[in-house]
Amino acid sequence: MVDGHFAGPDAARLAALRETMANPSVDAVWFARGGYGSNRIAEAALVDLPRGAGDKLYFGYSDAGFLHAGFHKAGLDVAWGPMPNDVLREGGSAAVTRSLDWIVRRDASTLEPRLDGPAMAFNLTVLSNLLGTPLEPDLSGVDLLIEDVGEQLYRLDRSMFHVTASPAIRKARRLRLGRVSDILPNDPVFAGDEVSIVEDWCRRSGIAFGGRADIGHDAENRIVPFPRENRSAPLW
Amino acid sequence: MVDGHFAGPDAARLAALRETMANPSVDAVWFARGGYGSNRIAEAALVDLPRGAGDKLYFGYSDAGFLHAGFHKAGLDVAWGPMPNDVLREGGSAAVTRSLDWIVRRDASTLEPRLDGPAMAFNLTVLSNLLGTPLEPDLSGVDLLIEDVGEQLYRLDRSMFHVTASPAIRKARRLRLGRVSDILPNDPVFAGDEVSIVEDWCRRSGIAFGGRADIGHDAENRIVPFPRENRSAPLW
Repeated sequence: MVDGHFAGPDAARLAALRETMANPSVDAVWFARGGYGSNRIAEAALVDLPRGAGDKLYFGYSDAGFLHAGFHKAGLDVAWGPMPNDVLREGGSAAVTRSLDWIVRRDASTLEPRLDGPAMAFNLTVLSNLLGTPLEPDLSGVDLLIEDVGEQLYRLDRSMFHVTASPAIRKARRLRLGRVSDILPNDPVFAGDEVSIVEDWCRRSGIAFGGRADIGHDAENRIVPFPRENRSAPLW
Repeated sequence: MVDGHFAGPDAARLAALRETMANPSVDAVWFARGGYGSNRIAEAALVDLPRGAGDKLYFGYSDAGFLHAGFHKAGLDVAWGPMPNDVLREGGSAAVTRSLDWIVRRDASTLEPRLDGPAMAFNLTVLSNLLGTPLEPDLSGVDLLIEDVGEQLYRLDRSMFHVTASPAIRKARRLRLGRVSDILPNDPVFAGDEVSIVEDWCRRSGIAFGGRADIGHDAENRIVPFPRENRSAPLW
């Protein structure tokens, strides 16, 4: 079923998600792909969480960040990592295998290599669009890893302004920059690059810049499990 | 002087703005054009407001909304309306004359025609990017007029999700939709149009939809003076 931009009407997508969340035989909900639209059902997915939602892993990246944020806040187990659709990338089978190695046996070799404490990962544009909403995560003391794809540098600059001005983001321990890919042309040319933009806004806002992160919209994208410490008390 | 994307380094742009704000012989600061970048100096422009800043009008639209928001919050006199650069549009001389008629003699015929109480106008993408920052305006009881330009409909949908989820926005009396121009192709085609998207998010969020507004990135763009009632107590 297709409904314009989406794989189906919001009600059908929400019902399918909730049915999977409630299914006791499901160990992990692995989002198939990114795109746009999970924000349209994220808040509703948090209402009256079905029994069984708390004993599984929710896994994906990019647009799935809207669900990651809300689910983590609600006490569920969330991780960032490659999705089934990534198999279409060059080298994508390694990405999908990496995810399976985490989902099935929590293989630590799949993790972003410089994790040394609680961390969360978000697409920057997604993060900007969930600030101030009921989905906003608790980033206190967390390493915040960001990446982006398909934006002009002026949009990256604007999102960094927005995100780093937020008191919620300023609670993070550090901000680390993943890859920014498929940057669209900027007219006129934007001075600097993604690193100088992110360093600049970290400096302005007093957020520590922790260097690069091994995540992005690519086959090398690594796993970032969200911290259990920052979840609200689980309901189960 | 040009500095990459911008008309000059932030420090030079900020100094020029503050010099004009402080100049007692200046009655109005009419922003010359939109684009991107006023957010980079808006917060600094509010620090230690120069004597004389409070007796003038700040006038423009689009990216100037970052300054509008912060200046209005600081107690300054702000209005939305066409900018000098609009003279380049077809029919643009009428737009510029309309602004001058407001700036020079507060000609009520230039106003957005359905204003019937306190109102503010913002570019939707700008508004989304200032939520949660120190620039966020007090929209209590205000008619919020929005418009946008050069975005895909999925971005419009995402911005409407973000904006209508904000408690600050839900304080508005009504939301009214100006024109959304130069909509970029959406792949796949997005079901609906800008009206159905905005109506949908108003319905979901409980914000009253007040119909269309006569503003936009075009020569017909009308004047929307920000309300004196919602300003903080002026410092002068």
